Amino acid sequence: MRALAYFKKGDIHFADDLPEPTIENDEEVLIDVSWCGICGTDLHEYLDGPIFMPRDGGEHPLSGKRLPQPMGHEMSGIVSKIGSKVTKVKAGDHVVVEAGCSCLDIKRWENSSLKTNAACSACAKGMVNCCAHAGFTGLGVTGGGFAERVTVSQDHCVVIPKELPLDVAALVEPLSVTWHAAKIAGFQKGQTACVMGAGPIGLAAVLVLKGFGASKIVVSELASIRRDLASSLGVEVFNPAEHADAIEELRKIPVGQDGFDAAFDCSGVKATFDTALHVTTFRGVSVNVAIWGNKPIDYHPMDVTLKEKRLTGSIGYTVEDFREVVEAIHSGRIPLQDCRQLITGKQKLEDGWEKGFLELMNHKETNVKILLTPNNHNELNA
Amino acid sequence: MRALAYFKKGDIHFADDLPEPTIENDEEVLIDVSWCGICGTDLHEYLDGPIFMPRDGGEHPLSGKRLPQPMGHEMSGIVSKIGSKVTKVKAGDHVVVEAGCSCLDIKRWENSSLKTNAACSACAKGMVNCCAHAGFTGLGVTGGGFAERVTVSQDHCVVIPKELPLDVAALVEPLSVTWHAAKIAGFQKGQTACVMGAGPIGLAAVLVLKGFGASKIVVSELASIRRDLASSLGVEVFNPAEHADAIEELRKIPVGQDGFDAAFDCSGVKATFDTALHVTTFRGVSVNVAIWGNKPIDYHPMDVTLKEKRLTGSIGYTVEDFREVVEAIHSGRIPLQDCRQLITGKQKLEDGWEKGFLELMNHKETNVKILLTPNNHNELNA
Ligand SMILES: [Zn+2]
Ligand SMILES: [Zn+2]
Ligand SMILES: [Zn+2]
Ligand SMILES: [Zn+2]
Repeated sequence: MRALAYFKKGDIHFADDLPEPTIENDEEVLIDVSWCGICGTDLHEYLDGPIFMPRDGGEHPLSGKRLPQPMGHEMSGIVSKIGSKVTKVKAGDHVVVEAGCSCLDIKRWENSSLKTNAACSACAKGMVNCCAHAGFTGLGVTGGGFAERVTVSQDHCVVIPKELPLDVAALVEPLSVTWHAAKIAGFQKGQTACVMGAGPIGLAAVLVLKGFGASKIVVSELASIRRDLASSLGVEVFNPAEHADAIEELRKIPVGQDGFDAAFDCSGVKATFDTALHVTTFRGVSVNVAIWGNKPIDYHPMDVTLKEKRLTGSIGYTVEDFREVVEAIHSGRIPLQDCRQLITGKQKLEDGWEKGFLELMNHKETNVKILLTPNNHNELNA
Repeated sequence: MRALAYFKKGDIHFADDLPEPTIENDEEVLIDVSWCGICGTDLHEYLDGPIFMPRDGGEHPLSGKRLPQPMGHEMSGIVSKIGSKVTKVKAGDHVVVEAGCSCLDIKRWENSSLKTNAACSACAKGMVNCCAHAGFTGLGVTGGGFAERVTVSQDHCVVIPKELPLDVAALVEPLSVTWHAAKIAGFQKGQTACVMGAGPIGLAAVLVLKGFGASKIVVSELASIRRDLASSLGVEVFNPAEHADAIEELRKIPVGQDGFDAAFDCSGVKATFDTALHVTTFRGVSVNVAIWGNKPIDYHPMDVTLKEKRLTGSIGYTVEDFREVVEAIHSGRIPLQDCRQLITGKQKLEDGWEKGFLELMNHKETNVKILLTPNNHNELNA
């Protein structure tokens, strides 16, 4: 099978002889991939990995599977075959794949090193996105969507209406990350929001917050090209480098509100943490959506206490978030044309390394989301 | 008038010639004080102040009033006289006084330096407990309850049922601090709670959380005398010094829950901050109820993110909290006998310095709340 795969540390390349994925389990589904987006996490896996991927020669603890494996976890496609106990989807259905894997998936894999363990306490409480053993389809648990075909459990498939374009559907995954974050924030219609960073997650947050009915969204971003991208989505932008006291200036933007109801840190550096905390108003919430290293930052408990603010964070998503995002796009609550603005490139699998990964690493700021396709159904010319 | 008053930095003493408080304003109420508790803040004002008090010779920014002034902000009493526009209370009513003062009070005082200012943004939003100019009756705004009589606005009076003992009523103030915190936490019936510290606020938190219907409350406290006090309120206690990994041991106490639903930091040191953060479960909340200095502590954003926890803080209270606490005591939701356990001493105003302030400073751990009375209605022998 043709795929763009992770072979070992520092080696991601296209090959046409990857093993065909098969239905190993009654509840699995075989999907013809249509589109799959390249994520910052994929680049990270190349530049600093293996992080989620098994180490060279080793097994993934959840699935017991080894490298090489096709990458890609932001995928849409068409079901081609189903296992004998599958009831939730049928051949021909258009689907998106919720890529998170947890203790609840272990039963699928004979060789899982966790086979005899009880579910972790997160999974026992039904919070699978916080699973202690969390992994992702396309990041080493099993092969992902930079491939002709992929096998997933029916529990991770969300059927989408056929009129919803499959390229836009590949954005459901990053939109679900920020949809989950907006729910964690308890974000309400009519509230104001500040988004730190206009990378793919920051821009996905903008789309979601528009969908949640924000009365004002301001994106704080240093790079002018990215500010322009945010502007083109119809929201206000702010350049912190232009202001001696950027936090104070940002805070003033929601006139008479003494700050924003919510702030979303989609960058994850000390400056954006401080900004997200200080630009919120009384009882406002600051949500971390970024992945941080283990270095501590300075924190003053009175910063939240005196204004009774909340500090929280959001991790991953659930299949429920996927369903809600699909519905939001289908109903127009998140407009299709806004989604399309996030797609800055479409490439064949064969060109995925050079015109996908390398393009994103070398021209980070002009790109948001590059989608790859195996072109199973002539997607590139459709 | 007889009172225990703050004269100047380092000088708190009893005197019998303090000026009589009068009704300066149509909406004010004159109260014969029954009981008034000594608070850690009062000691702090002596040891490290002036903090809330005006500096020697200066005016309080909210009221324009100067020293000396009777201290005391945890008071109950009997209304003796009312201003011509007072409708909420009448002479003879038993009341407790909500001691917080904000922008909304400025209209009472001719000499306020803030007279011509607009309300601060907290007050404009109705969050008077977060007022930028917040002050307290009995802490320099106007004279407090360590006196024969006190004048307050009707808006700060909460009428209590006559069958509710006036000594217990003096505890409504500290109970309101933690009642407010439980509401900030969104604490729900049946949830589990960990309380850091068994000082007056920690013990008040225990009473409130019992009233909220906690299924389990564990108090973590180093001092054995204070653990005994907590035990006598019928909750579990924990000595962090007895465990090599105290956080892990505490977390295990709510069996199978992977930590507590809520933690209340009533101590405010790095160890209790870390404990409160780490002993909570998925989507759990850690609430700061302590007052911290300006020194930062280390914080790792992934500590909240990976379990989608919340970090927040609670400051002060509102008159609504007072009403709810009065109702909770009256209905038995907070039992009278539990409240009485917090009262470890009752003294006359004349003895308030020696048997109140000095006793608390020298025997901190054996005392919780010492109440003072001017003995207007023979309270000490009643
Ligand atoms: Zn991703
Ligand atoms: Zn799990
Ligand atoms: Zn107090
Ligand atoms: Zn105010």
